[in-house]
Amino acid sequence: MPEHTSDSDERLHTSGERQARKPEIGVILGSASDLDRVGPVFSTLEDFQAGYEVAVISAHRTPGLLAEYASTAPGRGIKVIIAAAGLSAALPGALAALVDIPVVGLPLDVGTLKGIDALLSVTQMPPGVPVASVGIDNPKNAALLALRILGVSSPEVLSRLASYRESMAQDTVDKGRRVSEKGLPAWSR
Amino acid sequence: MPEHTSDSDERLHTSGERQARKPEIGVILGSASDLDRVGPVFSTLEDFQAGYEVAVISAHRTPGLLAEYASTAPGRGIKVIIAAAGLSAALPGALAALVDIPVVGLPLDVGTLKGIDALLSVTQMPPGVPVASVGIDNPKNAALLALRILGVSSPEVLSRLASYRESMAQDTVDKGRRVSEKGLPAWSR
Amino acid sequence: MPEHTSDSDERLHTSGERQARKPEIGVILGSASDLDRVGPVFSTLEDFQAGYEVAVISAHRTPGLLAEYASTAPGRGIKVIIAAAGLSAALPGALAALVDIPVVGLPLDVGTLKGIDALLSVTQMPPGVPVASVGIDNPKNAALLALRILGVSSPEVLSRLASYRESMAQDTVDKGRRVSEKGLPAWSR
Amino acid sequence: MPEHTSDSDERLHTSGERQARKPEIGVILGSASDLDRVGPVFSTLEDFQAGYEVAVISAHRTPGLLAEYASTAPGRGIKVIIAAAGLSAALPGALAALVDIPVVGLPLDVGTLKGIDALLSVTQMPPGVPVASVGIDNPKNAALLALRILGVSSPEVLSRLASYRESMAQDTVDKGRRVSEKGLPAWSR
Amino acid sequence: MPEHTSDSDERLHTSGERQARKPEIGVILGSASDLDRVGPVFSTLEDFQAGYEVAVISAHRTPGLLAEYASTAPGRGIKVIIAAAGLSAALPGALAALVDIPVVGLPLDVGTLKGIDALLSVTQMPPGVPVASVGIDNPKNAALLALRILGVSSPEVLSRLASYRESMAQDTVDKGRRVSEKGLPAWSR
Amino acid sequence: MPEHTSDSDERLHTSGERQARKPEIGVILGSASDLDRVGPVFSTLEDFQAGYEVAVISAHRTPGLLAEYASTAPGRGIKVIIAAAGLSAALPGALAALVDIPVVGLPLDVGTLKGIDALLSVTQMPPGVPVASVGIDNPKNAALLALRILGVSSPEVLSRLASYRESMAQDTVDKGRRVSEKGLPAWSR
Amino acid sequence: MPEHTSDSDERLHTSGERQARKPEIGVILGSASDLDRVGPVFSTLEDFQAGYEVAVISAHRTPGLLAEYASTAPGRGIKVIIAAAGLSAALPGALAALVDIPVVGLPLDVGTLKGIDALLSVTQMPPGVPVASVGIDNPKNAALLALRILGVSSPEVLSRLASYRESMAQDTVDKGRRVSEKGLPAWSR
Amino acid sequence: MPEHTSDSDERLHTSGERQARKPEIGVILGSASDLDRVGPVFSTLEDFQAGYEVAVISAHRTPGLLAEYASTAPGRGIKVIIAAAGLSAALPGALAALVDIPVVGLPLDVGTLKGIDALLSVTQMPPGVPVASVGIDNPKNAALLALRILGVSSPEVLSRLASYRESMAQDTVDKGRRVSEKGLPAWSR
Repeated sequence: MPEHTSDSDERLHTSGERQARKPEIGVILGSASDLDRVGPVFSTLEDFQAGYEVAVISAHRTPGLLAEYASTAPGRGIKVIIAAAGLSAALPGALAALVDIPVVGLPLDVGTLKGIDALLSVTQMPPGVPVASVGIDNPKNAALLALRILGVSSPEVLSRLASYRESMAQDTVDKGRRVSEKGLPAWSR
Repeated sequence: MPEHTSDSDERLHTSGERQARKPEIGVILGSASDLDRVGPVFSTLEDFQAGYEVAVISAHRTPGLLAEYASTAPGRGIKVIIAAAGLSAALPGALAALVDIPVVGLPLDVGTLKGIDALLSVTQMPPGVPVASVGIDNPKNAALLALRILGVSSPEVLSRLASYRESMAQDTVDKGRRVSEKGLPAWSR
Repeated sequence: MPEHTSDSDERLHTSGERQARKPEIGVILGSASDLDRVGPVFSTLEDFQAGYEVAVISAHRTPGLLAEYASTAPGRGIKVIIAAAGLSAALPGALAALVDIPVVGLPLDVGTLKGIDALLSVTQMPPGVPVASVGIDNPKNAALLALRILGVSSPEVLSRLASYRESMAQDTVDKGRRVSEKGLPAWSR
Repeated sequence: MPEHTSDSDERLHTSGERQARKPEIGVILGSASDLDRVGPVFSTLEDFQAGYEVAVISAHRTPGLLAEYASTAPGRGIKVIIAAAGLSAALPGALAALVDIPVVGLPLDVGTLKGIDALLSVTQMPPGVPVASVGIDNPKNAALLALRILGVSSPEVLSRLASYRESMAQDTVDKGRRVSEKGLPAWSR
Repeated sequence: MPEHTSDSDERLHTSGERQARKPEIGVILGSASDLDRVGPVFSTLEDFQAGYEVAVISAHRTPGLLAEYASTAPGRGIKVIIAAAGLSAALPGALAALVDIPVVGLPLDVGTLKGIDALLSVTQMPPGVPVASVGIDNPKNAALLALRILGVSSPEVLSRLASYRESMAQDTVDKGRRVSEKGLPAWSR
Repeated sequence: MPEHTSDSDERLHTSGERQARKPEIGVILGSASDLDRVGPVFSTLEDFQAGYEVAVISAHRTPGLLAEYASTAPGRGIKVIIAAAGLSAALPGALAALVDIPVVGLPLDVGTLKGIDALLSVTQMPPGVPVASVGIDNPKNAALLALRILGVSSPEVLSRLASYRESMAQDTVDKGRRVSEKGLPAWSR
Repeated sequence: MPEHTSDSDERLHTSGERQARKPEIGVILGSASDLDRVGPVFSTLEDFQAGYEVAVISAHRTPGLLAEYASTAPGRGIKVIIAAAGLSAALPGALAALVDIPVVGLPLDVGTLKGIDALLSVTQMPPGVPVASVGIDNPKNAALLALRILGVSSPEVLSRLASYRESMAQDTVDKGRRVSEKGLPAWSR
Repeated sequence: MPEHTSDSDERLHTSGERQARKPEIGVILGSASDLDRVGPVFSTLEDFQAGYEVAVISAHRTPGLLAEYASTAPGRGIKVIIAAAGLSAALPGALAALVDIPVVGLPLDVGTLKGIDALLSVTQMPPGVPVASVGIDNPKNAALLALRILGVSSPEVLSRLASYRESMAQDTVDKGRRVSEKGLPAWSR
């Protein structure tokens, strides 16, 4: 049962346990320096016991590696790609140009412009080459979107998503109790 | 074989032919006035012979209808939803809050702000409730993204997407011949 | 007599005193993590001895709770709702879609975009479903706007608002004395 | 029973009928050139048979008139003011500084910046002086917000607002029938 | 001889010396909390031995005081006004609406939007009521602009401005010597 | 007596009449193509019977001409310069760097960005070199600001500005009569 | 001698004449639909009798063609590339990632956002992979920048650029004569 | 062999070694306070053993110095200029107006607007006077762009750029190993 609150770094169970899962989600980062920033991608995928693989590939610094990844990923069973990048953020679009599977774009707040540059680069793709963008610096939604996409062919994932949604609602209710704890007049149903 | 250039209104074959296709994609518009603006959603889905259904549901004007659609769509076989809206564009997020299947958000340029309001409303979702946003006024990419998502469980759709990508490349090459036709010195491979 | 300067946390008198006041203002937060950020909402309402109730309800994480609140609030005597949210900030609009009483939207600076995303989501509502937006991260104005709205039917609240306006002017004049204290040549009336 | 679709210019019944209604809403325009742009303010108020009065008062060109209006309006029974302005749009805030009743700000798209200047000027008020902003060029919502505010003390207005909300939902459903008329596969409930 | 580098707080000579100067520049702050932020206004005016007076007057919190100041300032010999404000920043425009002398607007970075709200409010005035805006958080330029304006009728101020411009150029040249000090290959004229 | 409404092209009286006026205002345009766009600069100056001279000088295309103008203008009696430019709009700042008299910057909406590029270029000057910016495409305010500056040393101009302000107020009142003409319930003082 | 004013379509002399010039500049368009929009690129290069070649290559639709072009262009003597693209505008950066010669990026106003999306995508490249961006929809500057770069190794091009700069200055002076023609008081040197 | 990772301050070898290199690149800073901010310009040029010279010249504070530099630089062998500036950032354009060699503009994040003001000022030049802009606060790309431009006439520089590109790719691959080190499932080629 997925827990939507385990953003903390509990993701490292036994490595044997994880290797047992065949990767279906590819997580590509434009820079190794973004590894910590996108941590909730990994913890969320772990919570869902999803199989995934991670690589650092820059559209601008390692275009050859990008082409290699794109040409081999579907054959290895990757069904959806999460691509995270900041600044002009060409990575998600460059991948979407080379594969037919869905690419989730995760725009990052790098540089001075608060991520608005990355958001526009990721979303404003030319007609014909779609990218599925989530919000700026929102790694959890990138993971959840990839999982919803996997859910199209996996009743198990779909069921976990339903549990997740329920526990998230319950968690919001639970946290709402802080209202009374602070001495404020709480609405009681 | 999908044709990526048939944005024109050739989508109306015999209604019998179309009803034969079980809808797997739900296309929801926030306003009936957006029907023409999102035309390429329909023509692209037709090109791919995808089964889809269309409804006008406003998150703000018909919240009851929205809840009804969300609670029944998965049960009727809908696997992915395309939600198009302008202005504060709450529709995609409101649907994503009620279902576990992927929701593709299509922000529209309505009002004076060129669609930047809709783009931010669609993408900047709270962690936990993902929407897959495409670019402003980009209905073709909304349809193609939904098809890529269906491709996760359909080798046939995936194959058509590959053909589409090839024909799109060829079309770009063909149109590039205008360079010589204009008397400009064209690069020849 | 309301004091416009008591933003500090003096709001917790005896709980008995407060329960005596029937809530007429509903304050809804999209996230429990915003409780401190909107503190001046509560202190301002306390200064005016207004009856209010507080709840944490997320449009996206707890849509069912939202519907329940909206359907019961007017019946319990709530006359105006303050809804605070950041990011795509659907909460005020979602409430306005379900009730006929005024909804004050308080856009919050959450995420990287300085609240401009929330401001546009809160203000750019479709024609037919109005929200009354105040400025980004301006909880005092959200409270004062709700009080002005209550003043439509309450001469007592209206009178307190007049006192508040006077004391605010006096306070500005008082603080202006710092000009001389700093050795600057002050304008003297 | 209010009709939410009568934005057209049917507002001029017999003047006698209208004079019978005591004005409770003041509609102030910063410029006479905005009269047509805010037409739906008037038609919506007429639909609700609300009493209102209209004046052209510029915060910058006629500051004396502004002060006169503000000092006399509450005494004449005005309970809420709608103030429409473009560019630096000081009008709503200038009125809110002089009265204790609610001021609805309607930012207009005048000049080159698509109304974003007016939106910021109207919303970003200093703490202590609230304005209730609606969206850019959204006169219908300005009127509806003023009506919701009047509804705080008028069960009749509140009842009309409920009818309005119902008829608006029905109208959205009705217009949704265009989906089938266009030969598109419509969702049927 | 004015020194353009004395932004530090050396402005407090003997108060007697300063009272000897008849104020020709009025410096109005929208909030006492901005006194430190606009410090370079005062130090620059002191460097030029200009006569000035300072007041805290809020367009929204003390509209009466604003009217009083505007109606008396020209009669007391004030020839130019500097008005500093943040957020919706109505102060410069409100003053410009009440006087015929030039008003220099100084938009401040208050709130979350980095001063872009204040910049637009200060500059985007309606035709007929001009404000002279300088850049966001640029108090030195506000003072220098006021001095340039006084220079229209004062050869002495004009002469000091020329000296200032020369010493500023020399100061830039002097600071440029850091290039060599850092071991970098400096251009030598 | 200045008429604030004569924006129309009535400025061409007898050339003899105009040559009699010694130019005190220099109007510099970055491009001859902006002549029509800034028409109200000229008509407003004519209304006030101000002496002015006009030149097309580009900071980027004719830097030599710019230096020549700046070095000779004050000596010829020019007391204030209006500089109009679009895009990166370096003209006002380049002039302000070369003279000690006030420079009024008029940012124009040229290119695709609605003049926001010009507004930022004109206002965001480095400390030490002030420009007095008016709003985007607001030539009338550029002229009025220059006149207010001249008014510092000219009681006659000051008096005309007072008349202008009065007639502008009256004109707003007059135009407000359209409210009744349209059959709307007008506020009567 | 280059003429800076021949933006009109006079570029088609005899094709023999043009083929005599070995292409040193590659002009790549992301879409054939941009051919007319970037016309001044071609006319400017013709004015300078520069050798160039033109191709339509989309970074997203024809990534294979892009790689082919980048790997062969330097070998064929191309010394600088002009890459024009709108929306997320990945083309200039994708080329810069594959070659070591300078790439001039020309952001185009395609879609609804006025080209600000393309400007950010073109400029905000990661450190290590530079693109030389000109302004939005500024094809003439793209051509002139490429020519300035060629001038590094070509005294002839450098000389033509000097002539161009002179004729441009003269042209500005000539057009400035419109001031007198319009009956305005012109500055005479 | 250039090392792309030596952004640290190792640039100060023996001054004798450096003086041996004839300067071909001029690096101009608008303010001495930007020296540290643009450090990677110097370290990158040192890595490539490029000859360069540095000067602090303000377009607005030292226009005379600017003219002197521009008129002498080409004669001394300078082939490309890097100009760094913040705020209205007139420096790159002012230089481009005076020389025929390429000018690389480096917009800096100075003031409150995150460098968007500088970016627009640097890029939005009028047709006829091109500047080659890199991204906000991206000194390494400014240096690399200048080197690519020198590479047009220098096979040695071109060769070093190729080595740099290779080592940068390798460095990205090396850093990608952090994925495994963090216990994440790494993609293995």
